[in-house]
Amino acid sequence: MRTYKIDHLGIAVTSIDEALGVYRALGLAETHREEVESQGVRTAFLPVGESSVELLEPTSDSSPVGKFLAKRGPGLHHVCLAVDDIEAALAELRAKGFRLLQDAPVPGAGGKRVAFLHPAAGQGVLIELAEKEGR
Amino acid sequence: MRTYKIDHLGIAVTSIDEALGVYRALGLAETHREEVESQGVRTAFLPVGESSVELLEPTSDSSPVGKFLAKRGPGLHHVCLAVDDIEAALAELRAKGFRLLQDAPVPGAGGKRVAFLHPAAGQGVLIELAEKEGR
Repeated sequence: MRTYKIDHLGIAVTSIDEALGVYRALGLAETHREEVESQGVRTAFLPVGESSVELLEPTSDSSPVGKFLAKRGPGLHHVCLAVDDIEAALAELRAKGFRLLQDAPVPGAGGKRVAFLHPAAGQGVLIELAEKEGR
Repeated sequence: MRTYKIDHLGIAVTSIDEALGVYRALGLAETHREEVESQGVRTAFLPVGESSVELLEPTSDSSPVGKFLAKRGPGLHHVCLAVDDIEAALAELRAKGFRLLQDAPVPGAGGKRVAFLHPAAGQGVLIELAEKEGR
Protein backbone atom coordinates (compact mmCIF):
# COMPACT_ATOMS: atom_id res chain seq x y z
CA MET A 1 0.00 0.00 0.00
CA ARG A 2 1.31 3.45 -0.87
CA THR A 3 0.19 6.09 1.63
CA TYR A 4 1.14 9.60 0.54
CA LYS A 5 0.04 12.02 3.19
CA ILE A 6 -2.44 12.94 5.87
CA ASP A 7 -5.34 13.95 3.64
CA HIS A 8 -7.18 15.59 6.52
CA LEU A 9 -7.70 15.53 10.26
CA GLY A 10 -11.35 15.35 11.34
CA ILE A 11 -12.32 17.36 14.44
CA ALA A 12 -15.76 17.06 16.07
CA VAL A 13 -17.20 20.43 17.08
CA THR A 14 -20.54 21.57 18.48
CA SER A 15 -20.50 24.60 16.16
CA ILE A 16 -18.29 25.21 13.12
CA ASP A 17 -18.74 28.96 13.47
CA GLU A 18 -17.60 28.95 17.11
CA ALA A 19 -14.67 26.59 16.43
CA LEU A 20 -13.41 28.68 13.49
CA GLY A 21 -12.10 31.33 15.89
CA VAL A 22 -9.43 28.95 17.19
CA TYR A 23 -8.23 27.91 13.75
CA ARG A 24 -8.31 31.44 12.35
CA ALA A 25 -6.11 32.52 15.27
CA LEU A 26 -3.73 29.72 14.22
CA GLY A 27 -3.50 31.19 10.71
CA LEU A 28 -5.87 28.76 8.94
CA ALA A 29 -8.76 29.81 6.69
CA GLU A 30 -11.90 27.97 5.59
CA THR A 31 -12.05 27.24 1.85
CA HIS A 32 -15.34 25.39 1.59
CA ARG A 33 -18.24 24.05 3.56
CA GLU A 34 -20.33 21.04 2.68
CA GLU A 35 -23.17 19.03 4.18
CA VAL A 36 -22.79 15.24 3.97
CA GLU A 37 -26.41 14.20 4.46
CA SER A 38 -25.71 10.47 4.63
CA GLN A 39 -23.44 11.09 7.64
CA GLY A 40 -25.65 13.71 9.30
CA VAL A 41 -22.81 16.19 9.36
CA ARG A 42 -21.83 19.65 8.15
CA THR A 43 -18.13 19.98 7.32
CA ALA A 44 -15.75 22.90 6.85
CA PHE A 45 -12.29 22.46 5.32
CA LEU A 46 -9.26 24.54 6.32
CA PRO A 47 -6.16 23.68 4.26
CA VAL A 48 -2.79 23.51 6.02
CA GLY A 49 0.19 22.49 3.88
CA GLU A 50 -0.72 19.37 1.86
CA SER A 51 -3.45 18.47 4.40
CA SER A 52 -6.63 20.03 5.77
CA VAL A 53 -8.38 20.37 9.07
CA GLU A 54 -11.99 19.17 8.65
CA LEU A 55 -14.40 20.56 11.23
CA LEU A 56 -17.39 18.26 11.73
CA GLU A 57 -20.65 19.62 13.15
CA PRO A 58 -23.50 17.13 13.53
CA THR A 59 -26.90 17.92 11.99
CA SER A 60 -28.56 15.45 14.39
CA ASP A 61 -27.81 13.97 17.81
CA SER A 62 -28.19 10.43 16.42
CA SER A 63 -25.50 10.88 13.75
CA PRO A 64 -22.07 9.30 14.36
CA VAL A 65 -20.51 12.70 15.16
CA GLY A 66 -23.52 13.64 17.33
CA LYS A 67 -23.01 10.44 19.37
CA PHE A 68 -19.26 11.07 19.57
CA LEU A 69 -19.89 14.58 20.98
CA ALA A 70 -22.42 13.27 23.53
CA LYS A 71 -19.95 10.60 24.72
CA ARG A 72 -16.55 12.33 24.53
CA GLY A 73 -17.18 16.01 23.88
CA PRO A 74 -15.53 18.01 21.10
CA GLY A 75 -12.08 16.93 19.96
CA LEU A 76 -10.00 14.94 17.50
CA HIS A 77 -12.34 12.55 15.68
CA HIS A 78 -10.51 10.76 12.85
CA VAL A 79 -7.47 10.88 10.59
CA CYS A 80 -7.74 10.38 6.85
CA LEU A 81 -4.75 9.04 4.93
CA ALA A 82 -4.42 9.44 1.15
CA VAL A 83 -3.60 6.22 -0.71
CA ASP A 84 -2.76 5.58 -4.35
CA ASP A 85 -5.38 2.92 -5.08
CA ILE A 86 -8.19 2.64 -2.55
CA GLU A 87 -9.63 -0.69 -3.80
CA ALA A 88 -6.18 -2.28 -3.61
CA ALA A 89 -5.62 -0.77 -0.15
CA LEU A 90 -8.94 -2.13 1.17
CA ALA A 91 -8.26 -5.57 -0.31
CA GLU A 92 -4.80 -5.62 1.28
CA LEU A 93 -6.18 -4.62 4.70
CA ARG A 94 -8.97 -7.21 4.49
CA ALA A 95 -6.43 -9.89 3.58
CA LYS A 96 -4.43 -8.92 6.67
CA GLY A 97 -7.54 -9.38 8.85
CA PHE A 98 -8.43 -5.72 9.47
CA ARG A 99 -12.13 -4.95 9.99
CA LEU A 100 -13.52 -2.26 7.68
CA LEU A 101 -16.67 -0.15 8.02
CA GLN A 102 -17.08 -0.14 4.22
CA ASP A 103 -16.17 -3.00 1.90
CA ALA A 104 -15.98 -0.67 -1.08
CA PRO A 105 -15.22 3.06 -1.37
CA VAL A 106 -18.12 5.48 -0.76
CA PRO A 107 -18.38 9.15 -1.78
CA GLY A 108 -16.90 11.42 0.88
CA ALA A 109 -16.64 15.19 1.22
CA GLY A 110 -15.13 16.92 -1.80
CA GLY A 111 -16.23 14.07 -4.07
CA LYS A 112 -13.34 11.84 -2.99
CA ARG A 113 -13.72 8.07 -2.78
CA VAL A 114 -13.23 7.07 0.85
CA ALA A 115 -13.65 4.18 3.31
CA PHE A 116 -13.26 3.84 7.07
CA LEU A 117 -11.53 1.13 9.03
CA HIS A 118 -13.44 -0.16 12.05
CA PRO A 119 -12.35 1.84 15.16
CA ALA A 120 -11.18 -1.39 16.80
CA ALA A 121 -8.90 -2.03 13.79
CA GLY A 122 -7.10 1.26 14.50
CA GLN A 123 -6.59 0.54 18.22
CA GLY A 124 -8.83 3.43 19.25
CA VAL A 125 -8.07 5.62 16.25
CA LEU A 126 -10.77 6.02 13.61
CA ILE A 127 -8.84 5.81 10.32
CA GLU A 128 -10.27 6.85 6.96
CA LEU A 129 -8.62 6.17 3.63
CA ALA A 130 -9.14 8.49 0.66
CA GLU A 131 -8.04 7.98 -2.89
CA LYS A 132 -5.24 10.31 -3.89
CA GLU A 133 -6.45 13.37 -5.78
CA GLY A 134 -5.85 13.56 -9.51
CA ARG A 135 -5.33 9.83 -9.92
CA MET B 1 0.87 33.78 12.23
CA ARG B 2 2.13 31.59 9.38
CA THR B 3 1.21 27.93 9.86
CA TYR B 4 2.81 25.69 7.23
CA LYS B 5 1.70 22.16 7.83
CA ILE B 6 0.65 19.49 10.26
CA ASP B 7 4.06 18.72 11.76
CA HIS B 8 2.80 15.52 13.38
CA LEU B 9 -0.25 13.82 14.80
CA GLY B 10 0.25 12.41 18.31
CA ILE B 11 -1.45 9.08 19.08
CA ALA B 12 -1.56 7.61 22.60
CA VAL B 13 -0.85 3.87 22.65
CA THR B 14 -0.38 1.30 25.40
CA SER B 15 2.52 -0.27 23.48
CA ILE B 16 4.42 1.19 20.52
CA ASP B 17 5.42 -2.29 19.37
CA GLU B 18 1.81 -3.51 19.32
CA ALA B 19 0.52 -0.35 17.65
CA LEU B 20 3.16 -0.46 14.91
CA GLY B 21 1.35 -3.38 13.22
CA VAL B 22 -1.56 -1.12 12.28
CA TYR B 23 0.64 1.62 10.81
CA ARG B 24 2.92 -0.83 9.01
CA ALA B 25 -0.18 -2.34 7.37
CA LEU B 26 -1.06 1.21 6.25
CA GLY B 27 2.32 1.55 4.53
CA LEU B 28 4.09 3.66 7.17
CA ALA B 29 7.51 2.88 8.64
CA GLU B 30 9.19 3.97 11.87
CA THR B 31 12.26 6.16 11.37
CA HIS B 32 13.26 6.87 14.94
CA ARG B 33 12.34 6.32 18.56
CA GLU B 34 13.05 8.65 21.44
CA GLU B 35 12.30 8.86 25.15
CA VAL B 36 11.19 12.30 26.39
CA GLU B 37 11.91 11.89 30.10
CA SER B 38 10.37 15.22 31.15
CA GLN B 39 7.04 14.06 29.67
CA GLY B 40 7.27 10.46 30.87
CA VAL B 41 6.81 9.15 27.37
CA ARG B 42 8.49 7.02 24.74
CA THR B 43 7.82 8.19 21.16
CA ALA B 44 8.14 6.62 17.73
CA PHE B 45 7.94 8.67 14.54
CA LEU B 46 6.48 7.38 11.27
CA PRO B 47 6.74 9.94 8.43
CA VAL B 48 3.81 10.33 6.02
CA GLY B 49 4.17 13.01 3.34
CA GLU B 50 5.34 16.24 4.95
CA SER B 51 3.98 15.10 8.37
CA SER B 52 4.54 12.25 10.79
CA VAL B 53 2.50 10.01 13.01
CA GLU B 54 3.98 10.13 16.54
CA LEU B 55 3.13 7.11 18.68
CA LEU B 56 3.22 7.97 22.41
CA GLU B 57 3.70 5.23 25.00
CA PRO B 58 3.79 6.35 28.63
CA THR B 59 6.70 5.33 30.83
CA SER B 60 4.56 5.88 33.96
CA ASP B 61 0.84 5.90 34.81
CA SER B 62 1.16 9.39 36.32
CA SER B 63 2.52 10.98 33.11
CA PRO B 64 0.13 13.07 30.98
CA VAL B 65 -0.17 10.30 28.38
CA GLY B 66 -0.56 7.67 31.12
CA LYS B 67 -3.48 9.64 32.58
CA PHE B 68 -4.98 10.14 29.11
CA LEU B 69 -4.89 6.37 28.50
CA ALA B 70 -6.48 5.64 31.89
CA LYS B 71 -9.30 8.11 31.23
CA ARG B 72 -9.99 7.74 27.50
CA GLY B 73 -8.05 4.71 26.27
CA PRO B 74 -5.73 4.70 23.28
CA GLY B 75 -6.44 7.12 20.47
CA LEU B 76 -5.75 10.51 18.91
CA HIS B 77 -3.95 12.63 21.50
CA HIS B 78 -2.78 15.93 19.95
CA VAL B 79 -2.00 17.71 16.71
CA CYS B 80 1.20 19.67 16.20
CA LEU B 81 1.25 22.53 13.70
CA ALA B 82 4.50 23.92 12.27
CA VAL B 83 4.81 27.70 12.47
CA ASP B 84 7.43 30.08 11.09
CA ASP B 85 8.32 31.88 14.33
CA ILE B 86 7.17 30.19 17.53
CA GLU B 87 7.85 33.14 19.88
CA ALA B 88 5.81 35.43 17.64
CA ALA B 89 3.05 32.81 17.39
CA LEU B 90 2.85 32.42 21.19
CA ALA B 91 2.83 36.20 21.70
CA GLU B 92 0.03 36.56 19.14
CA LEU B 93 -2.06 33.84 20.77
CA ARG B 94 -1.53 35.30 24.25
CA ALA B 95 -2.58 38.74 22.97
CA LYS B 96 -5.76 37.14 21.61
CA GLY B 97 -6.51 35.68 25.05
CA PHE B 98 -5.61 32.05 24.41
CA ARG B 99 -4.32 30.07 27.40
CA LEU B 100 -0.97 28.36 26.87
CA LEU B 101 0.64 25.48 28.77
CA GLN B 102 4.09 26.99 28.16
CA ASP B 103 4.87 30.69 27.99
CA ALA B 104 8.08 30.06 26.08
CA PRO B 105 9.13 27.23 23.74
CA VAL B 106 10.50 24.06 25.35
CA PRO B 107 12.59 21.28 23.74
CA GLY B 108 10.36 18.65 22.16
CA ALA B 109 11.08 15.36 20.38
CA GLY B 110 13.61 15.65 17.56
CA GLY B 111 15.17 18.72 19.16
CA LYS B 112 12.41 21.01 17.91
CA ARG B 113 11.25 24.02 19.92
CA VAL B 114 7.61 23.45 20.87
CA ALA B 115 4.80 24.70 23.09
CA PHE B 116 1.29 23.50 23.85
CA LEU B 117 -1.94 25.47 24.01
CA HIS B 118 -4.15 24.70 27.00
CA PRO B 119 -6.68 21.99 25.99
CA ALA B 120 -9.53 24.38 26.79
CA ALA B 121 -8.04 26.89 24.33
CA GLY B 122 -8.41 24.32 21.52
CA GLN B 123 -12.04 23.48 22.35
CA GLY B 124 -11.18 19.90 23.31
CA VAL B 125 -8.22 19.57 20.94
CA LEU B 126 -4.74 19.56 22.43
CA ILE B 127 -2.74 21.73 20.01
CA GLU B 128 1.06 21.86 19.94
CA LEU B 129 3.07 24.38 17.95
CA ALA B 130 6.54 23.54 16.65
CA GLU B 131 9.01 25.84 15.01
CA LYS B 132 9.43 25.11 11.33
CA GLU B 133 12.48 22.96 10.60
CA GLY B 134 15.54 24.58 9.08
CA ARG B 135 14.56 28.07 10.13
